[in-house]
Amino acid sequence: MKLLVVNPNTTASMTKLIGAAARAAAGQGVEVIAVNPASGPVSIEGYYDEAFSVPGLLGEIAQGEKAGIDAYVIACFDDTGLEAARCIASAPVIGIGEAAFHVASLLGHKFGVVTTLSRSIAAIETNLLKYGLERRCSKVRACEVPVLELENPASGARAKLSAQIELAKHEDGAEAIVLGCAGMADLAASLAAEHGLPVVDGVAAAVRLAEALVALGHRTSKIGAYAAPVAKPFKGIFESFGVG
Amino acid sequence: MKLLVVNPNTTASMTKLIGAAARAAAGQGVEVIAVNPASGPVSIEGYYDEAFSVPGLLGEIAQGEKAGIDAYVIACFDDTGLEAARCIASAPVIGIGEAAFHVASLLGHKFGVVTTLSRSIAAIETNLLKYGLERRCSKVRACEVPVLELENPASGARAKLSAQIELAKHEDGAEAIVLGCAGMADLAASLAAEHGLPVVDGVAAAVRLAEALVALGHRTSKIGAYAAPVAKPFKGIFESFGVG
Amino acid sequence: MKLLVVNPNTTASMTKLIGAAARAAAGQGVEVIAVNPASGPVSIEGYYDEAFSVPGLLGEIAQGEKAGIDAYVIACFDDTGLEAARCIASAPVIGIGEAAFHVASLLGHKFGVVTTLSRSIAAIETNLLKYGLERRCSKVRACEVPVLELENPASGARAKLSAQIELAKHEDGAEAIVLGCAGMADLAASLAAEHGLPVVDGVAAAVRLAEALVALGHRTSKIGAYAAPVAKPFKGIFESFGVG
Amino acid sequence: MKLLVVNPNTTASMTKLIGAAARAAAGQGVEVIAVNPASGPVSIEGYYDEAFSVPGLLGEIAQGEKAGIDAYVIACFDDTGLEAARCIASAPVIGIGEAAFHVASLLGHKFGVVTTLSRSIAAIETNLLKYGLERRCSKVRACEVPVLELENPASGARAKLSAQIELAKHEDGAEAIVLGCAGMADLAASLAAEHGLPVVDGVAAAVRLAEALVALGHRTSKIGAYAAPVAKPFKGIFESFGVG
Amino acid sequence: MKLLVVNPNTTASMTKLIGAAARAAAGQGVEVIAVNPASGPVSIEGYYDEAFSVPGLLGEIAQGEKAGIDAYVIACFDDTGLEAARCIASAPVIGIGEAAFHVASLLGHKFGVVTTLSRSIAAIETNLLKYGLERRCSKVRACEVPVLELENPASGARAKLSAQIELAKHEDGAEAIVLGCAGMADLAASLAAEHGLPVVDGVAAAVRLAEALVALGHRTSKIGAYAAPVAKPFKGIFESFGVG
Amino acid sequence: MKLLVVNPNTTASMTKLIGAAARAAAGQGVEVIAVNPASGPVSIEGYYDEAFSVPGLLGEIAQGEKAGIDAYVIACFDDTGLEAARCIASAPVIGIGEAAFHVASLLGHKFGVVTTLSRSIAAIETNLLKYGLERRCSKVRACEVPVLELENPASGARAKLSAQIELAKHEDGAEAIVLGCAGMADLAASLAAEHGLPVVDGVAAAVRLAEALVALGHRTSKIGAYAAPVAKPFKGIFESFGVG
Repeated sequence: MKLLVVNPNTTASMTKLIGAAARAAAGQGVEVIAVNPASGPVSIEGYYDEAFSVPGLLGEIAQGEKAGIDAYVIACFDDTGLEAARCIASAPVIGIGEAAFHVASLLGHKFGVVTTLSRSIAAIETNLLKYGLERRCSKVRACEVPVLELENPASGARAKLSAQIELAKHEDGAEAIVLGCAGMADLAASLAAEHGLPVVDGVAAAVRLAEALVALGHRTSKIGAYAAPVAKPFKGIFESFGVG
Repeated sequence: MKLLVVNPNTTASMTKLIGAAARAAAGQGVEVIAVNPASGPVSIEGYYDEAFSVPGLLGEIAQGEKAGIDAYVIACFDDTGLEAARCIASAPVIGIGEAAFHVASLLGHKFGVVTTLSRSIAAIETNLLKYGLERRCSKVRACEVPVLELENPASGARAKLSAQIELAKHEDGAEAIVLGCAGMADLAASLAAEHGLPVVDGVAAAVRLAEALVALGHRTSKIGAYAAPVAKPFKGIFESFGVG
Repeated sequence: MKLLVVNPNTTASMTKLIGAAARAAAGQGVEVIAVNPASGPVSIEGYYDEAFSVPGLLGEIAQGEKAGIDAYVIACFDDTGLEAARCIASAPVIGIGEAAFHVASLLGHKFGVVTTLSRSIAAIETNLLKYGLERRCSKVRACEVPVLELENPASGARAKLSAQIELAKHEDGAEAIVLGCAGMADLAASLAAEHGLPVVDGVAAAVRLAEALVALGHRTSKIGAYAAPVAKPFKGIFESFGVG
Repeated sequence: MKLLVVNPNTTASMTKLIGAAARAAAGQGVEVIAVNPASGPVSIEGYYDEAFSVPGLLGEIAQGEKAGIDAYVIACFDDTGLEAARCIASAPVIGIGEAAFHVASLLGHKFGVVTTLSRSIAAIETNLLKYGLERRCSKVRACEVPVLELENPASGARAKLSAQIELAKHEDGAEAIVLGCAGMADLAASLAAEHGLPVVDGVAAAVRLAEALVALGHRTSKIGAYAAPVAKPFKGIFESFGVG
Repeated sequence: MKLLVVNPNTTASMTKLIGAAARAAAGQGVEVIAVNPASGPVSIEGYYDEAFSVPGLLGEIAQGEKAGIDAYVIACFDDTGLEAARCIASAPVIGIGEAAFHVASLLGHKFGVVTTLSRSIAAIETNLLKYGLERRCSKVRACEVPVLELENPASGARAKLSAQIELAKHEDGAEAIVLGCAGMADLAASLAAEHGLPVVDGVAAAVRLAEALVALGHRTSKIGAYAAPVAKPFKGIFESFGVG
Repeated sequence: MKLLVVNPNTTASMTKLIGAAARAAAGQGVEVIAVNPASGPVSIEGYYDEAFSVPGLLGEIAQGEKAGIDAYVIACFDDTGLEAARCIASAPVIGIGEAAFHVASLLGHKFGVVTTLSRSIAAIETNLLKYGLERRCSKVRACEVPVLELENPASGARAKLSAQIELAKHEDGAEAIVLGCAGMADLAASLAAEHGLPVVDGVAAAVRLAEALVALGHRTSKIGAYAAPVAKPFKGIFESFGVG
């Protein structure tokens, strides 16, 4: 099967890391294709950045449909553009935030989330509410490290994440941890070992859930919220995106 | 005060109608400026259309900031791009769906919503949940008339809306009705008279709530979810939107 | 338009202050009439005091109906008697608690409330639940200053309020603050400046929301919860209140 | 033990019936005293009537405290004045709506409520939300018979109630029924037999719950919401109610 | 009336204590019969222990039905097997957790729970959610004393409980306390006196609620969730439990 | 990997069918072992049957732990014994109800459930609440065909299921369907084709989710609700289950 992993930001080095993480997580016979749009912000931190990443993301998915992709992963923890992507994809689409929440809810009574900046907390809380899993989440915390600093050893990212996990465990009653950014994937295993609880990386979780949906033969329902877009003209810079 | 009403779709005739409705609703001394982006879909029906209307909408708001706008109204019932707009605006921003829900909740124990197509129900239900008003809404119904057909007398739009209001009142226990599309503004008064209950048009509601916020001297909080975007490069067709 | 602001307690000096705050907030052409009932407690702190303020409050509203009032504001943060007032008023009625919650929810992801005594917290939490906005409120806090001590500089009211706002911001994640008593109106602006976030005073918020409803031509729905009372005899001290 | 059952409306014949129902339900050694205030409406149908029944109700409870009452029942299905009563009573206070909901929730997965007029539905729904039992209630229905018509055979009250119970059972999935008015007490047994499910009368339920609380030695908590009122002057017709 | 109190664990000394507590709480004319199954764990601490206590518990209830029992109390705070017991009992069945939650919710705005081990918190939170009372509970806390250590003075159980009550009161806003284990019954009165708030023991609460239901003539609804089991073969060690 | 699928009822023919369905769904390299306990009811329809199936189910899982099982599926739609099983398994455990709900929530805005008998609705609704997905479910419906009749062509099971799916789609707004019994697995594909929406069978869903968890290296959290049982004596027929 062909799995398209779309990093919705435009930082190719991060796409490469995400692609590697996805490949490491993928099962046999899964071809992972990691892409990012040519247009949009270099990282996604808050609602404004999200808005500009979605058109490019949808363009990648439209391409994927022509290329016979079997499932899509949106590799931004905010699940940027998830619903819109489902409208145009015939194959299943999974966000890494969503994937991590569902997986974590199978592993413990309550899970905690640790994301990058506190400005992202509202969007994550809203997603949890939308998915229905807000009661399963003990608290969304931020380690206050920007996305593109995660790879920088000088940022102290791992230590800051670890401190928040400690608080999630002891103050919030979290029994599992969800890492709230695609760029944290490589830290999951060592943080799990250190804290003695499951630490869920959304990229890996989404890859395996996508495989599961494909294997089950399920596709997104087209009779309601995710019906194919109504054919209509698009104007200006988006002229070529029209579905008519 | 200067109020910028942004119709996020690219149909100028609809922008004109919305502008007229906004002007009719506005108080003395309010200059209503109605615009629509140059880029994006001609109407917004579902998540896919929404996604392509947001960048243009944000562009209009960025222009508004330079022009000293005092408040913004987003004139699409899905409140498309509301959170992102709040991040870049120093003045208050109100969506017409949001405005209508808040106003209706001051008029009766429960309100019903009647929108255009059933594909839009999920997005409206999710917004109600996000705003916290889902228990105040008796049901979201659709009259199954496309947005751009609302102005076409042959569509039977008024009769179909009226039939759904009757059901909302008698089957769902709605005590007030929210019209779920900016293009229904001109029908509110006659439907209210016919059914003997408040019928709330979001455009008018948003205009008056925006005036109220300006008069109160309130601006969007910048310490959390709506903090100004982090300065960073934008690539490709969005290059000029970078906030750095 | 004529706006009747009813302070439901019987302390005329507080009515005067509330009237001044309302006038300061009101738009051009709005005549603010501030009254309080002749009967009832001198301040409202908890359910017991509330109960004895409502008949007098309703008497003021019944008078207002005869005097052609266009909208009513109930100037007690508990929104004392709000539903009963809506039953007898043909014009819209807004409580200052309700108004502040709705306004604050347009300014940030979550708002905190700081009220006077902790015994009032339960009533405020119940109101939030009733309005549907409980998830939008980060926490209801009390500064433990009695209502009538707010005007007394020796009470340290401002400093105590400020300390609770600091906690709301840093411990609870509040992005906006609602002041939980009509008597705190004059502190809103300086607290907002000090803490760098919107501080909402319910009196001003209610005045402007009431104006908005009047301008929109909306009146309370009379087909359900707020239907006009059934005509029936009232006995004893309330004989004259009978609607028959 | 001495149990004071307060009918908050001023119709003595109804107080008599309620007293008889309470006595029929009471255990050995329980002295049931049924009273109603001298001031207030002859029946309680909606928020407006409620407001004028509370001061008289509280007066009866204040008298009860002096007379050494062991527990109080508020015999109006809206649980009129319940919280205020708790503030001044040292003995436990139970509302008949509240009592019926708690009892019904011990008998089936979901219970339905059938009240008198549809204008009362909102208040009952709000109470369910306040108590936390809204998910346990399948639906609140109205039989559209006014309170004082319940005793009139020509009103067809029993048949109308029975029809709503049938709908509650088959359309809403109710497994038990709560009768939504103190005046329906005498119909409970025959409706239960007819429909083959528990039919809970609030008067009897409250009497027995009150006995249980007394036997358990529990009294209302005085450290928060139900703390004794702050001593302060009351003015006008309520002068004598001051707690100072 | 005959009240069967089933301690679902197999520790006879604890059954004896529970029986004594039940008898102390019971009204005149109530014959309390305290039993425990012959098969199952010696204490119930978590889901695994629960699972093995239910068949024996149901056996005791099946015996009770033959012996003409009027009501049942399940004397484990997790309300182990409550729903299954209701399916086979014609008389009412009450769990001590459930009973304590309902009683506490009649005494204050919010109640706190203090249980034995933190591993039990999830089950209690889930029960609160199931009953609908989760918003009424301020927090479920654990004192980290194992069930069978409660009777051991060296465990420091009382002091540890008292410390958690102090936190519940001051940090969580609890106005009443529920003791989260049948083995804590004897401490309720002294803890209530020490902390000046109601402390609810589930055994006593359940006994009195059971009496109330019997006096009211209510039995569990048999038309839905608690319908009598379908007759069918049981195999292996449970062969004799078949209801066919 | 070795996957143990436990049918908690004692009907070997159903175990065989479930095993076949699981094998058909499983990926390469997955050894599916389908078992059922020797003790317990021949089918599970309601809480009573559930209670007697859990000890045998836990016995099978205890055996599995010794045999080096990599993941467990509990093949009863009520997710019988799920939490207890998690306490003793080091490998992940998934219930088929839970699996189906999570998968369906990735395919549409709302899913409907169609189960066998209406007596099972309460348990399913409670599970949805426990998992947090109750808002994602449009309604739980029953086709009123007993479990063991599903395989009997004379029962009309397929037609009855199909009729309920039609109602779920058109009356409830379901966009995907979850089949509420392990015995319906073979009907999923044809019902999906007939109704044009995803139809999720829990057995297949659980098999693939279990594979995903194993591939991700996740195990159930042991620091809270699912901590290993406390070692203690078990008495009577369960003596051998003691974990001490």
